[in-house]
Amino acid sequence: MRQKNPTGIIGLDNMLNGGIPAGNQVIVDGGPGVGKTLLCFEFLYRGAKNGENGILFSFEEDTESILENAKTAFPSFTDIDSLIGAGKLKILGSEETKQYIQKNKDDTSYSFGNFISEITSVARSYNAKRLVLDSISVIKLFITDPYYYRSLSTSLLSVLTRQGITSLITMENTSSEKANSFFQPESFIYDGMILMFFTGNDLENRIPTIEIIKMRGTDHTYNGMPYEITSSGFNILLQNNTTQRFFNVSN
Amino acid sequence: MRQKNPTGIIGLDNMLNGGIPAGNQVIVDGGPGVGKTLLCFEFLYRGAKNGENGILFSFEEDTESILENAKTAFPSFTDIDSLIGAGKLKILGSEETKQYIQKNKDDTSYSFGNFISEITSVARSYNAKRLVLDSISVIKLFITDPYYYRSLSTSLLSVLTRQGITSLITMENTSSEKANSFFQPESFIYDGMILMFFTGNDLENRIPTIEIIKMRGTDHTYNGMPYEITSSGFNILLQNNTTQRFFNVSN
Amino acid sequence: MRQKNPTGIIGLDNMLNGGIPAGNQVIVDGGPGVGKTLLCFEFLYRGAKNGENGILFSFEEDTESILENAKTAFPSFTDIDSLIGAGKLKILGSEETKQYIQKNKDDTSYSFGNFISEITSVARSYNAKRLVLDSISVIKLFITDPYYYRSLSTSLLSVLTRQGITSLITMENTSSEKANSFFQPESFIYDGMILMFFTGNDLENRIPTIEIIKMRGTDHTYNGMPYEITSSGFNILLQNNTTQRFFNVSN
Amino acid sequence: MRQKNPTGIIGLDNMLNGGIPAGNQVIVDGGPGVGKTLLCFEFLYRGAKNGENGILFSFEEDTESILENAKTAFPSFTDIDSLIGAGKLKILGSEETKQYIQKNKDDTSYSFGNFISEITSVARSYNAKRLVLDSISVIKLFITDPYYYRSLSTSLLSVLTRQGITSLITMENTSSEKANSFFQPESFIYDGMILMFFTGNDLENRIPTIEIIKMRGTDHTYNGMPYEITSSGFNILLQNNTTQRFFNVSN
Amino acid sequence: MRQKNPTGIIGLDNMLNGGIPAGNQVIVDGGPGVGKTLLCFEFLYRGAKNGENGILFSFEEDTESILENAKTAFPSFTDIDSLIGAGKLKILGSEETKQYIQKNKDDTSYSFGNFISEITSVARSYNAKRLVLDSISVIKLFITDPYYYRSLSTSLLSVLTRQGITSLITMENTSSEKANSFFQPESFIYDGMILMFFTGNDLENRIPTIEIIKMRGTDHTYNGMPYEITSSGFNILLQNNTTQRFFNVSN
Amino acid sequence: MRQKNPTGIIGLDNMLNGGIPAGNQVIVDGGPGVGKTLLCFEFLYRGAKNGENGILFSFEEDTESILENAKTAFPSFTDIDSLIGAGKLKILGSEETKQYIQKNKDDTSYSFGNFISEITSVARSYNAKRLVLDSISVIKLFITDPYYYRSLSTSLLSVLTRQGITSLITMENTSSEKANSFFQPESFIYDGMILMFFTGNDLENRIPTIEIIKMRGTDHTYNGMPYEITSSGFNILLQNNTTQRFFNVSN
Repeated sequence: MRQKNPTGIIGLDNMLNGGIPAGNQVIVDGGPGVGKTLLCFEFLYRGAKNGENGILFSFEEDTESILENAKTAFPSFTDIDSLIGAGKLKILGSEETKQYIQKNKDDTSYSFGNFISEITSVARSYNAKRLVLDSISVIKLFITDPYYYRSLSTSLLSVLTRQGITSLITMENTSSEKANSFFQPESFIYDGMILMFFTGNDLENRIPTIEIIKMRGTDHTYNGMPYEITSSGFNILLQNNTTQRFFNVSN
Repeated sequence: MRQKNPTGIIGLDNMLNGGIPAGNQVIVDGGPGVGKTLLCFEFLYRGAKNGENGILFSFEEDTESILENAKTAFPSFTDIDSLIGAGKLKILGSEETKQYIQKNKDDTSYSFGNFISEITSVARSYNAKRLVLDSISVIKLFITDPYYYRSLSTSLLSVLTRQGITSLITMENTSSEKANSFFQPESFIYDGMILMFFTGNDLENRIPTIEIIKMRGTDHTYNGMPYEITSSGFNILLQNNTTQRFFNVSN
Repeated sequence: MRQKNPTGIIGLDNMLNGGIPAGNQVIVDGGPGVGKTLLCFEFLYRGAKNGENGILFSFEEDTESILENAKTAFPSFTDIDSLIGAGKLKILGSEETKQYIQKNKDDTSYSFGNFISEITSVARSYNAKRLVLDSISVIKLFITDPYYYRSLSTSLLSVLTRQGITSLITMENTSSEKANSFFQPESFIYDGMILMFFTGNDLENRIPTIEIIKMRGTDHTYNGMPYEITSSGFNILLQNNTTQRFFNVSN
Repeated sequence: MRQKNPTGIIGLDNMLNGGIPAGNQVIVDGGPGVGKTLLCFEFLYRGAKNGENGILFSFEEDTESILENAKTAFPSFTDIDSLIGAGKLKILGSEETKQYIQKNKDDTSYSFGNFISEITSVARSYNAKRLVLDSISVIKLFITDPYYYRSLSTSLLSVLTRQGITSLITMENTSSEKANSFFQPESFIYDGMILMFFTGNDLENRIPTIEIIKMRGTDHTYNGMPYEITSSGFNILLQNNTTQRFFNVSN
Repeated sequence: MRQKNPTGIIGLDNMLNGGIPAGNQVIVDGGPGVGKTLLCFEFLYRGAKNGENGILFSFEEDTESILENAKTAFPSFTDIDSLIGAGKLKILGSEETKQYIQKNKDDTSYSFGNFISEITSVARSYNAKRLVLDSISVIKLFITDPYYYRSLSTSLLSVLTRQGITSLITMENTSSEKANSFFQPESFIYDGMILMFFTGNDLENRIPTIEIIKMRGTDHTYNGMPYEITSSGFNILLQNNTTQRFFNVSN
Repeated sequence: MRQKNPTGIIGLDNMLNGGIPAGNQVIVDGGPGVGKTLLCFEFLYRGAKNGENGILFSFEEDTESILENAKTAFPSFTDIDSLIGAGKLKILGSEETKQYIQKNKDDTSYSFGNFISEITSVARSYNAKRLVLDSISVIKLFITDPYYYRSLSTSLLSVLTRQGITSLITMENTSSEKANSFFQPESFIYDGMILMFFTGNDLENRIPTIEIIKMRGTDHTYNGMPYEITSSGFNILLQNNTTQRFFNVSN
């Protein structure tokens, strides 16, 4: 059976029957404000503390703001800077990430020609075992040709897989309710999909919910679980009546 | 009446009044994570044990990961490797499958010119009676011309039919609830359609459900049936009140 | 008043106040697996036994499979082959039908230039009074120009009408629930429309339902009626509370 | 106040507070099979008996079938032929109507260049006071340029208005439930809109319903009214609780 | 604070906390038959009686029919003609209005090049303080380039604002239920939006309802209010429980 | 942790756990008439009184009308003019703002070439710490190329961020009910998103509601809160049962 390192996120490993299988490329899909970037950050942070170097490529925020937001959300993560200093955690904000793309002459779209090879070589240079790309939706925003985007998406997937890197790739959803969510066709090819959304209605207490839609190489739960974001990381509240695994396998 | 070999999947043959008619080309339609690939794998596995060679062409995963995922889901299938060794079961991952297509000059779409003839000759060389293509949605992703795609889809259908091969062809659905599902027009021409989806709501216990939408050449049930994935394969739970066949024929 | 030969399908003639008016071109609209092809087959079979020759042009299945499926569904129809032998029933599978169209140079669409004149001359050569085209949706799939398709659709209609042939033309619906069904604009010009769909929900007992949406030249019911497919043909279960005719005419 | 001749259709004149104002161009919008053509026919028939000549231009049926359908629906209309003989009622089927349009070279769309001037001159030659065009949706099907269609639609409107002709122009709706109906933007410019649809659900007794959406130049009810089609014409069943007029005017 | 002249429409001024601020350009949005044109006519009529000249430009009806419809709806408005005679009220039907546009060579779209300058100079020549354009949707129907239309819409807005004219501009909605209504992006730039629609269902008593969506420069209610059209004008029935203003300001 | 200056808007700072983090670029999304412009105005007004200069660029209204509307809504803001006089508050209406764009030759779209650099230099010249752009939807209306628009949107974001300016950028929503709202993909890249909408139904008392969808760099509530607009500014009514923060952090 494929090796599974625990993500270290409370509740998630239980949902995943141990963790994300090494080398899986996983989409984290959700509307704005559900905490995708924070979940990904904790994924890298837990890995770094656990001997798995991690690297984050952002198209959405600069390095400083990513770190500030993480420290604000997770005051107990007091060793972020030391992990960065030790080269176990690497954050590349939009400025750095955008070095790897070029604006096209038409001045409206971008060229991602060498993007994949470059980020993977960067990842390799940091000996990264965990990678986060935040978000692939921004890449989609700036590629005029859908087929070029899909082709890029496939290449990204196979290159990272070949590297044996485990990745979380965020995908922005135009709705924050699951009922209104549709999966993007290009997400089908990924090894896993995690959906974050809200249940409940506007004026009553809404419940942030996380669901594992798909995860190759491991059994997992298939119901949504409420979560909260505490000063010491995500806390996914497993519901007894919903922790049934997809496979009824004890392994 | 057309010959029907049991698929060997518990419950499915009962829904199908014996099995899938030999030579039917069947779409397996469902959202991400419902277990389409695993169902198709068991279909090949049961055939291989039963004297019907099977071959799987994947555009989604490499061979190793397909096998790992299957072994993880079905620990009781201890003879997968020996069946492969004996040439009764053949798994071609995305790398191998992609040999049969070429990237077009425009670098965004692909050419499937000889794809069909090549995979059928491969299938023939393995004396395959069962074939799985996982998934036709990925092919669709990379063909820019919808008419070319439809034309390819028809050719695939008629070539496989002429070969007398029984196939399961997966189709990714953008939703995992049936209410939000619409059938793709190109699926109309296939001999059968099996839909896998979830019932129930997000936070309560959701129920994986399988329904036979259409199956030429045999009577079948037309209600959804709950299923679970056990260590020894799929287990479709026939509901007495819903096992009514479409035809009220005793044959 | 126009002559109406009973279709011979139990319940349908009652819904139609006697039958389909001779020379009507009627769309049979429904999702995959509702039994459109079987209904059309019985329409031809009943005609053939009743002195009205019938011919079926299929774009979806080959001759052999059409016959197998019909015999599987309707074991009591023991004289299908003798009717064929007697030239009263003619089935042209996709292979034969496709002789009448040509693939265009662009290799993705098809040319239906002489299609209509050819199939009508074939129909005439068999002295056919009833004709089935299964399905016009496949034709639509392979015509790139919507206006060319509509133009073809109109010509088909007027040629068949001129021939005095009564036709059922199947149209695939992307949903099998009526709530999600929309009528195709090109179906407006036809003389009649019969809709087949399912009522009820996924996990409870669903009910196959048939409704006459429109039928020129005769009164008809306008509610949905449940149906079952028995070994001796369709059985439409007239509901007393819903057999009210559209016209309150006794004729 | 504008002159209003009663349409002669039972209940409709009451809904219209007397009738359709002379010179109004009115859209009759509804799904297939709701009886639009029959309503329009009765409108002409009642006019003809009442000293207002009427003419019908059809793109959907040939003359013979229009007459047969009308006679089948309305057996009490025993004087249809004599009214035609007397030149008070004129029916032009699709064959005759299509004389006034030309197929374009591209062979897929049609040219309606002189269509309007020709049909109005025909109408004038018959001294027609009432005109029916069945249906404008077919015209739309065959015009490739939406702006050309809209422009044609406006010209038709103003020419007929200038002639002082009162017209009913049918428009096919892709749904037969009002909830799914949307008004076509090009219908905004017409003087009136009458919607015909079904209420109730599939398996219970459905109710054919007619509603006056808009009618310039007269007060009218604004609720839906059930109707039935009897041997002696439409019978609209006014509901006391819904006969409230839009204007609370006694005139 | 900006000057507000009462519109004179019963209930509307109360909803508007006094009236429409002078110089506001207001969209009146609603489905066919809700009474948009009549509301606009009363707006001009009340202004004319009150010393504010008004002018109406119609793309939908000719002058005569506009006046007939108004007189039919509002029999108590006995002085319409004298107001027109006195130059206080000016109605330009579609014929006159269309003088200000030219048909393009392509014969399908129209040129509105000088339209705005011309109608504003006409308005000025009548010393109009109130203006109605009925409807901007017809203009949209005949402009092929959406950006040209939006650009025209902005110019219209700024020119009328510069003139200090208060305008009601009707916009046709494809639905007459609010639930199905979406606001057109180009309406965002206007100073106000009034929505007219129906509540209630098809067969029971439906309720014509008016709601102020937006009104710059004044406080207003934000709930829908039922209205009726009486012989002496609109009567908006203020509901105590819904007359709460948007601002809780006493001014 | 990033510095947070209170917005000064009652309730909002509490929802934001102190305020908007300095340098955040925030989308204010809502349908017409929900009060977006007034909220933004108060944001600038409170800043100006608090030592943070503010500037507003409008594409929707002229300066005079913006000020009138604000004074009408907020009669207690008696020192608006003096703040403007003191250079602490700067309002640029559409006339002034449009100086910074050019109409393209095609006369339908606009060029925003130097727009961003110009408005930021203007902002700098006023030493603005707070900036409002009302609305980006109007910019979108006039840019024909979606990729150019997105590219502009990104540049705007990064330039303002580099300036350390805190901005509110309004985005018009085509619906005023949240259920019908979808987030624009281009809004994903912003640091925050505030949604304003109505709850409740048409004829009963509707409730203006504000919700913080996303806010980088601070904890915040994630439920909708009712608000009212009083003579002395917005008053957001915190609901005890819904004031739970997204992060359970005390910081």
